[in-house]
Amino acid sequence: MSAPMLNERDLAFYLYELFDTQALCQRERYQDHDKQTFDEVINTAKTIAEKYFMPIRQKLDVHQPTFDGTKVHLIDEMKPAYDALNESGLPSACADYEFNGMQLPPIVSSIAGAYLSIAGGNAVGYSMLTTANANLLAAHGSDELIEKWVVPLREGRYAGTMAMTEPDCGSGLADLTTSASKDEQGNYRITGSKIFISGGDHDLSENIVHLVLARIKGAPKGIKGISLFVVPKFLVNEDGTIGDSNEVALSGLFHKMGGRAHTSTALSFGEDQGAIGYLVGEENKGLQYMFHMMNEARILVGTGAAVIANAGYQYSLDYAKNRPQGRLPSSKDPLSPMVSIIEHADVRRMLLAQKAYAEGAMALVLYGAQLSDDEKTAQTQEQKDHAHLLLDFLTPIIKTWPSEYGPKANDLAIQVLGGHGYINEHPVEMFYRDNRLNPIHEGTTGIQSLDLLARKVVMNKQAGYKATIVEIEKTIQQASAHESLAQYTQQLTNALNTLNKTTVFLLQSMATKDIDLVLANSVQYLSMFGHVIIAWLWLKKAVLANQALATSQHEEEQAFYQGKLQATQYFYRYELPQISLWAETLLSLDDTTMTMQENWF
Amino acid sequence: MSAPMLNERDLAFYLYELFDTQALCQRERYQDHDKQTFDEVINTAKTIAEKYFMPIRQKLDVHQPTFDGTKVHLIDEMKPAYDALNESGLPSACADYEFNGMQLPPIVSSIAGAYLSIAGGNAVGYSMLTTANANLLAAHGSDELIEKWVVPLREGRYAGTMAMTEPDCGSGLADLTTSASKDEQGNYRITGSKIFISGGDHDLSENIVHLVLARIKGAPKGIKGISLFVVPKFLVNEDGTIGDSNEVALSGLFHKMGGRAHTSTALSFGEDQGAIGYLVGEENKGLQYMFHMMNEARILVGTGAAVIANAGYQYSLDYAKNRPQGRLPSSKDPLSPMVSIIEHADVRRMLLAQKAYAEGAMALVLYGAQLSDDEKTAQTQEQKDHAHLLLDFLTPIIKTWPSEYGPKANDLAIQVLGGHGYINEHPVEMFYRDNRLNPIHEGTTGIQSLDLLARKVVMNKQAGYKATIVEIEKTIQQASAHESLAQYTQQLTNALNTLNKTTVFLLQSMATKDIDLVLANSVQYLSMFGHVIIAWLWLKKAVLANQALATSQHEEEQAFYQGKLQATQYFYRYELPQISLWAETLLSLDDTTMTMQENWF
Repeated sequence: MSAPMLNERDLAFYLYELFDTQALCQRERYQDHDKQTFDEVINTAKTIAEKYFMPIRQKLDVHQPTFDGTKVHLIDEMKPAYDALNESGLPSACADYEFNGMQLPPIVSSIAGAYLSIAGGNAVGYSMLTTANANLLAAHGSDELIEKWVVPLREGRYAGTMAMTEPDCGSGLADLTTSASKDEQGNYRITGSKIFISGGDHDLSENIVHLVLARIKGAPKGIKGISLFVVPKFLVNEDGTIGDSNEVALSGLFHKMGGRAHTSTALSFGEDQGAIGYLVGEENKGLQYMFHMMNEARILVGTGAAVIANAGYQYSLDYAKNRPQGRLPSSKDPLSPMVSIIEHADVRRMLLAQKAYAEGAMALVLYGAQLSDDEKTAQTQEQKDHAHLLLDFLTPIIKTWPSEYGPKANDLAIQVLGGHGYINEHPVEMFYRDNRLNPIHEGTTGIQSLDLLARKVVMNKQAGYKATIVEIEKTIQQASAHESLAQYTQQLTNALNTLNKTTVFLLQSMATKDIDLVLANSVQYLSMFGHVIIAWLWLKKAVLANQALATSQHEEEQAFYQGKLQATQYFYRYELPQISLWAETLLSLDDTTMTMQENWF
Repeated sequence: MSAPMLNERDLAFYLYELFDTQALCQRERYQDHDKQTFDEVINTAKTIAEKYFMPIRQKLDVHQPTFDGTKVHLIDEMKPAYDALNESGLPSACADYEFNGMQLPPIVSSIAGAYLSIAGGNAVGYSMLTTANANLLAAHGSDELIEKWVVPLREGRYAGTMAMTEPDCGSGLADLTTSASKDEQGNYRITGSKIFISGGDHDLSENIVHLVLARIKGAPKGIKGISLFVVPKFLVNEDGTIGDSNEVALSGLFHKMGGRAHTSTALSFGEDQGAIGYLVGEENKGLQYMFHMMNEARILVGTGAAVIANAGYQYSLDYAKNRPQGRLPSSKDPLSPMVSIIEHADVRRMLLAQKAYAEGAMALVLYGAQLSDDEKTAQTQEQKDHAHLLLDFLTPIIKTWPSEYGPKANDLAIQVLGGHGYINEHPVEMFYRDNRLNPIHEGTTGIQSLDLLARKVVMNKQAGYKATIVEIEKTIQQASAHESLAQYTQQLTNALNTLNKTTVFLLQSMATKDIDLVLANSVQYLSMFGHVIIAWLWLKKAVLANQALATSQHEEEQAFYQGKLQATQYFYRYELPQISLWAETLLSLDDTTMTMQENWF
C-alpha cells in the first residue's frame, strides 16, 4: 500500500506554523526537549505503528475478541504489539518523569498517537484509557492510591478503564444504581452492573483497574450522591504481587460495528460479598472527578475522529491519483486514454470536502491539545486561566465537530473508491465504521449541544463565550491585512454577527420562555458554532499560507500552501453559508419537534 | 422484538390514498385482482419474511458466504428460505401468467418486497436479480432464448446475474475488454474478468444465468461496440437437463461492509476455450439492452434504500417510546421519574427527520413503481408515453435521493439508540451498513447527477423536465385551496422558480461555456432537484391529510394524518431551505473544484 497514513508536511504545519510548538521548550517542564526530540517521538510512534499494528489491523477488525464463558481472547498478535507500545513509553509520554513519563507536550503526543490510532484502530484504546485512568488518579487520588495504582498503570503493567454506564440509565448518570457499602473491616463493597466498558476484560496486562461510579448507601439521589472507586480485577498484596480475584465478573461482550479490537464489555461487580473498592478523593464527589477524565476523554474522542478522517482522506486521495477511469465530459472520444479519477470534478469535490473537514478538525483538536497544555504549563497564571476558560468552553465543540464531520469525510472516502470502498480490501469502510462511535460515546452530540448552550455559554457571565469571540476577532484583524482574503474576512465577520445575534436572542429567551423550547434546537446551535470555529481556524491557516507564499519559492511548498487556500475557499463557499439556515431555525424558536406528538409518528 | 418492520397504516396510505392502486384493477392486465388479492400478496410476503428470513437475518450478516477454493458456502438455513420464497411465486409476481407470474402491479410487488428486504437483507437479492435478468431476456431475447432461459428463471430453478463491471474500468463501461469471438462451430466464446458480480456463485439454484457485456472481436471501440450474452454456469442439454460446466470460474469473493448475505464475486470467463455465450438481440446493442435492466435496477436500488430507511425509523421509534432515560431540561429534580427518550426534543428531531426522509423516499419510489406500470399498462398510448417520459427523466432522482437520504435516516436511527445502536443486538447498525452500498451501485451519485443534468434535462427539448414541472404545478394548484398549507405552497412555488432559473442558466451556460465547468456542480443540481421533488410529494400528502382530517373522527386516524402534516412542516422548515445554497453554488458556476490542482491536495 502506497498511501501515506498521514500527510507529514501537514503535521509539521500544525506543529511549527499554526502552533508554535518549539516555543514550548522554553517552559520549565519541557526544557529537555527540542524540535528534534519531538520529531523523534513522532517517528517512534510511526515505526511502532508500521511494524506492529498495520500488519494486524485488518485481522483485529475481522477477528473480534471472543468470550469463552470464562475469559476473553484476543488474537495472538495483539500482545506483542501492546507490549511494544508500552515499552516505547508512548502511552505515558505526557506524564511526569517520576511516573515513567517523558514530560512531552500533549500536542506532540497527539500527533504520535495519530499514527498509532490509524494503524491500530481501537487496539491502542487499551493504552489510551489506561493513561486517562492514571491521569485521573494522579490528580484526585491519595498518595497511597497513587503509589499502589498509578505507577503500574504508567508502566503498562496494569490497564485501566472507566466504568460509568449502566443498563437502565445510559447517559443519565443521575439514575445510576451501582452501590457501595462498608463491610465489617471498613472496606467499601461495590455491587452493580455496568455496560459498554471498553477494555473491561482481556489478558494483555497483569491487572485491570476499573474506576467505578457508585452510590454509597444513604447518599443523596441524583448526581450529588455519586462517588468514585478504584475496583481492581485482582486485589494486590502488600508486597505488590497480584492477589485474589475481586468479584469483577465479565457477563458478556458487545459486538460493535467498528473499533472491534477494543473489547466492549458488560461487567458485574460483587456477585457474592461485593467487590472491594477504594474510594477516590471524597465521598459524593465522584462525578466531579470523573469529569476530569471525561473532559480529557472528550478531547481524545474528537482527536480520534479527526485522525480517522485524515487517514481516509489520505487513502482516497492516493487512490484517486492512481486509479484511471472514464473521461471528462468535454472528451467523449473512446480512443482517448482514461483519466485518473482525480480529474473528475465530483471526485475533486469529495476530496476537497474531506480536506476541509479532516484538516479543519485536526487544527481544532490540536488547538484543544495546546490549550490543555497551556492551562497547566503556561508561563503566567493569567495565561493558564485564559487557556482553561477557552478549553472548558470549547470542549463540546472539540468533541463534536470532528465526531460529526469525521464520519462525513469517511463517507466521502468510500464514495471516491466506489465499489472498492465498500469492501475490506481497502480500509476506508473500516474507518467509516470505526468513526461512527464518536458522535455517541463520552456524551452524544445531543448532550454536548445542551452542555454548550445551557451550561457553557451561560457560565460566568458568558466569560468563555466572550473569550472565544475575542480570539476569532484577533484573526479577523490579522486577516484584514491580506487583500486576497477580504471575502473570507467579511464572511467570518458576518458569521460572527449572526452567532452573536443568535446567542443574545437565545439567552434572552432562556430568561423569559419555556426552557425546553429554547433548547429544542440546541444541536443546530452547536452546528452553527462549530462551523464558525472551523471557519476561523481555516482563516488562520489562510493567513499563514498567504504569508508563506509571499516568500517561499519551492514548488512543493507553494503547492502545499495553495492547497490550504483552496480548502479555505471550499469551506467558505460550500460549508459556512449553512449557518444562515441554522440561525433561522434558532431565531424563530422553531417548535416543530416540540409540537410533534408521540402518537403522530 | 416488538418493533414493527414497517408501518402498515402508512403502506395503506401509499396504496389506496396517495396512489389509487385499486383503480388499476380496471386495467385488462389486472382484471383478476382487487384490493383483497393485493393485501393477501403483501401478507404472504410478510409471513415468509417473518417465518424464514427474520430468524436468520443476523446469522446471514455475521456468517458471510465463504469460498473453499472450489465453491461458495452459505449458511444452511438459506436454502429453505430461498425455496420458500420461490414457491410463493413472489419474485415473479409482476410477470405474465404464461411465465409463472401473477400479473401483479409493480407498486404492490414493491411493498411485498419491502418486507422481504427488511427481513432478509440482501438475501432476497438472489431472487430480485433473477427477476430483473428474466425481464431483460423476456424483452430483448429471441423466442429460443426465452424458452430456454426465462422459464426456469421465472420458476426460480435458475438464478440470474448481471455481469458488467471489470477490474480495470469500473463504471467506465466504454473501456470494458471482455471479448467474444466465434469458434469453428459458430458459437460465441467469451473471455474476460468481471468483478462485483452479485450472486455470481452459490448453490441455491440448479444453474446460474449470467448476462455478460462483452466486445465482439472487431467491434467499434467505446460503448457502441458492446454486445450482450447469456453465459450460463452450466450448459443445458437439448432435453433441458443440466450439462457440462461452461468455463465460468469463481476467482474470489469480496467481503462487503453490508449486504453480506448476497455474495459479491470476481468471475473469470473462459480460461480455456472460452465460455459459450448466446447473443441477446443484435450485436453491439448490448448496452442498450442492459440499460433496460439497469433502469429497472436503479428504481430497485432506490426502493431498497427507502425500505431500509423506513425499517430503521420504525425500529428506533419503537425504542424511543420504550426506553426511559434522563429528564427534560425543565425538570431537574432527581426524584422525578425518568422520561421515555422520545420526550427529548433532539430525539424527536431525529425521529422526525427519519420520518421526513424515509416516508418521503417511499412516496418517491412507489411513484416510480407506478410510472413503470403506467408506461406499460395505462389505458391510452398518450398516458403510456407520458409515464415513460416522467420515469425516464426522474430515474436518476428516484435512484439517488433515497440512496443519499436513506443512509442519513439510518445514521439517525443509530444515534437515537446511542451506544445500543452501535452493537449488533439491534439491527440499526446493520441497516446503516447495508444501505451504504446504495449510493454506489447501479451508477454512483456522481454518475446519476451527470445523467440528470447533461442528458435527461437536455433531452427532447427538455420534455421530461417540463412534464415534471407541470406535475408539481398541479399539486401547487390543488394545495392553494388549503389555507393552512399556504406557507408550503408559497415555499414550493419559490423553490420551483429557483429550480427553473438555475436550469435555464445552466442550459445557456452549456452552450457557451466550458462544459466541464458547467457540469462541475452537477451533484448540487441533483440535490436541489431531489429536494424539490420530495417537497412536492410531501405537499401532495399534506393535501390528502388535510382532506382526511376534515372528515375523519377516529383518533388514531387523526393522529396519522397529523403526523403527515408535521413531517411536511419538518421538511419545509428544516430541509427545503437548503436549495437556496445549492442554487447559489450553481448560479455562480463555482469553480473551486475545477481550479484545485492535484499537487495542492
